[in-house]
Amino acid sequence: KVDGDRLWDSLMEMAKIGPGVAGGNNRQTLTDADAEGRARFKEWCEAAGMTMALDRMGNMFMRHEGNEPELDPVYIGSHLDTQPTGGKYDGVLGVLAGLEVVRSIRDMGIQTRRPIVVVNWTNEEGARFAPAMLASGVYAGMHTEDYANAREDADGKKFGDELDRIGWRGTEDVGGRPMHAMFEYHIEQGPILEAEGKQIGVVTHGQGLWWLQVTLTGKDAHTGSTPMNMRVNAGLGMARIIEAVHRIAMDHQPGAVGAVGQANFYPNSRNVIPGKAVFTIDFRSPDLGKLTSMRDRLEAEAPQIAADLGLGIEIEPVGHFDPVTFDPQLVDIVRNTAQNLGYSHMNIVSGAGHDACWINRVAPTVMIMCPCVDGLSHNEAEEISPESATAGADVLLHAVLDVAEV
Amino acid sequence: KVDGDRLWDSLMEMAKIGPGVAGGNNRQTLTDADAEGRARFKEWCEAAGMTMALDRMGNMFMRHEGNEPELDPVYIGSHLDTQPTGGKYDGVLGVLAGLEVVRSIRDMGIQTRRPIVVVNWTNEEGARFAPAMLASGVYAGMHTEDYANAREDADGKKFGDELDRIGWRGTEDVGGRPMHAMFEYHIEQGPILEAEGKQIGVVTHGQGLWWLQVTLTGKDAHTGSTPMNMRVNAGLGMARIIEAVHRIAMDHQPGAVGAVGQANFYPNSRNVIPGKAVFTIDFRSPDLGKLTSMRDRLEAEAPQIAADLGLGIEIEPVGHFDPVTFDPQLVDIVRNTAQNLGYSHMNIVSGAGHDACWINRVAPTVMIMCPCVDGLSHNEAEEISPESATAGADVLLHAVLDVAEV
Ligand SMILES: NC(=O)NCCC(=O)O
Ligand SMILES: NC(=O)NCCC(=O)O
Repeated sequence: KVDGDRLWDSLMEMAKIGPGVAGGNNRQTLTDADAEGRARFKEWCEAAGMTMALDRMGNMFMRHEGNEPELDPVYIGSHLDTQPTGGKYDGVLGVLAGLEVVRSIRDMGIQTRRPIVVVNWTNEEGARFAPAMLASGVYAGMHTEDYANAREDADGKKFGDELDRIGWRGTEDVGGRPMHAMFEYHIEQGPILEAEGKQIGVVTHGQGLWWLQVTLTGKDAHTGSTPMNMRVNAGLGMARIIEAVHRIAMDHQPGAVGAVGQANFYPNSRNVIPGKAVFTIDFRSPDLGKLTSMRDRLEAEAPQIAADLGLGIEIEPVGHFDPVTFDPQLVDIVRNTAQNLGYSHMNIVSGAGHDACWINRVAPTVMIMCPCVDGLSHNEAEEISPESATAGADVLLHAVLDVAEV
Repeated sequence: KVDGDRLWDSLMEMAKIGPGVAGGNNRQTLTDADAEGRARFKEWCEAAGMTMALDRMGNMFMRHEGNEPELDPVYIGSHLDTQPTGGKYDGVLGVLAGLEVVRSIRDMGIQTRRPIVVVNWTNEEGARFAPAMLASGVYAGMHTEDYANAREDADGKKFGDELDRIGWRGTEDVGGRPMHAMFEYHIEQGPILEAEGKQIGVVTHGQGLWWLQVTLTGKDAHTGSTPMNMRVNAGLGMARIIEAVHRIAMDHQPGAVGAVGQANFYPNSRNVIPGKAVFTIDFRSPDLGKLTSMRDRLEAEAPQIAADLGLGIEIEPVGHFDPVTFDPQLVDIVRNTAQNLGYSHMNIVSGAGHDACWINRVAPTVMIMCPCVDGLSHNEAEEISPESATAGADVLLHAVLDVAEV
């Protein structure tokens, strides 16, 4: 069994770095707080006898040696970055549970044949720099390093420059590590496990996603003195497209979602008809057909909405992954482990994207989930119980021991 | 006749202070650029023999003495502040044409019985601090000084602190100056004069306005893992209310407008369902019945839209003025002056709010307008011809001379 108290203490310690304004965290990627969180994690890992490798995307690989160092290691990875108003567990739980697995193994004097590597993947959230899961995506060969380095935040700062600035760019090539398997343990971020009263989610699939950034171009004009029929109102166009996104998602029920999370008017002045609106649509489904169909409908309807209002429109994909099927053998191992340890469990589809979704393309990968209170995530009020955290970490420990061969 | 070239040169000189990004200006109220613009204006006025008085709202009163200093002066006022992406003429023309009137009078050796006072009213635009026409509103007794000082910009900076910071708070009491009349000369900011081919707009009335700031409160949640039926999406609520604003305005045609110019999502992250949306509705009409009816409809419909989505809603008025009827005698004087000088002219209703709308409550007031290209304003591309600028300034000169008694 893992030491649930120690895991919880580490979670609470990490949560002190980059605190939010309402009990959660704002430890966005490549900020000073991110650097501090990374340093703390490294310190803890080194105290547990692990050694670090760092690649050119800032991905941290903390290695616990196996009895047969030449064997492909077993990986446990997630992320330490958070949303601007994020929770204390999203990502962090998976990284610190990986550390807890190694700490437990050492405490118990267990030896594994295979090395175990705990990973902190850079910029999973995609809040500061789109797309999400950026550095695991580069690792899996989905993006080039140049693409990643050129990503810009809202202030026009570049991913590559910020990585250099915080001093966490390594020299190791990105990708191509021998990987026997990767595990990612994560909070569900949705309501299903709680509703079903299950302790463990055995993640069989992950939803696919399209992020479509829409730019509508109208004409800045005075809200008072411009007659209604002379307006080219980008804000009104945005409102209509947000409604269309909702309608399209509802038309694809069940098993599809759609919303706009980020939206900006320009010049954003009370008495100026917005001459420009920029916003990002988020469509997801575990069904590739539905995912594609939602995008197709949007790409048919939005230009029509824009044309009706005389607006220019550009639609740029800024994030995409297809639905994922995790490794069936590893899925079975997770399920059997939960069963043997006496935890209630069920199959589940991940609603969120995860680093595991990319790594699944280059190595056998699986995810374990624990319930979160009210299904709430990407909210500072995100909460889990210490018992939930421990249960999943226990399943992680035993599944990893199985695969790493004691 | 005024010196049109000198007026134009002054406009172009002022436009160099707080330049925009696309040929216009960003000289928002109480910024360093505003301070620089004020200093330049004061320098020009003093060179023309005028003396300054400054009140506690930063309103600048530049006095040209009359032959009978004890008589109530004739005022010419507008504003030097601009929108964040504003034009070079909105407001500025009225202030610098006032200066040009005094310069011309001096050049021609004309003596008036009454003093002439050229005013720069603080924060007309309302872009940085709502409401618009803030300091002329305090002057007219519509707001208290405390109310004005406490207004906050988007960064939480207060009007009063920023006025102190730029060093333009005076000591004179706000309001109560003896005022024989006030003239405001302004670009139309709409398409009517251009469409009708008229050089001069004789402004008989001004539209009334309601600014309603709406705050919708939902629940931040993950865009991927939160099922559609568990969402409390403040962004979707905003989209529906923006559409309702448009519909309500269209239902009140002709003679009514409505739009949302400023809108912000929170936390404004691509993969977070907005837990909060804050935006400002701008309704206007020259007809008090229509203006009231639009607000009433919004206040009936918006809470229903919010309730349907499970959202909390607050609607706070952040700007208001009733439709205005300018002083009939002064209106006749402006019309006759335009007629006598041979300029084509027509009666017009101001679509925008102006300092004159407030001052009209405490002194006989009138406005003169000139056409602007494509009716465009609150846009860096705002343009007028030098001939238009000169024509209106000429009418201003002769009307002022009439009222100030040569
Ligand atoms: N797990 C998580 O919230 N990842 C962020 C990427 C996404 O939006 O799904
Ligand atoms: N003239 C002008 O644009 N004033 C700003 C106040 C308003 O929105 O009407």
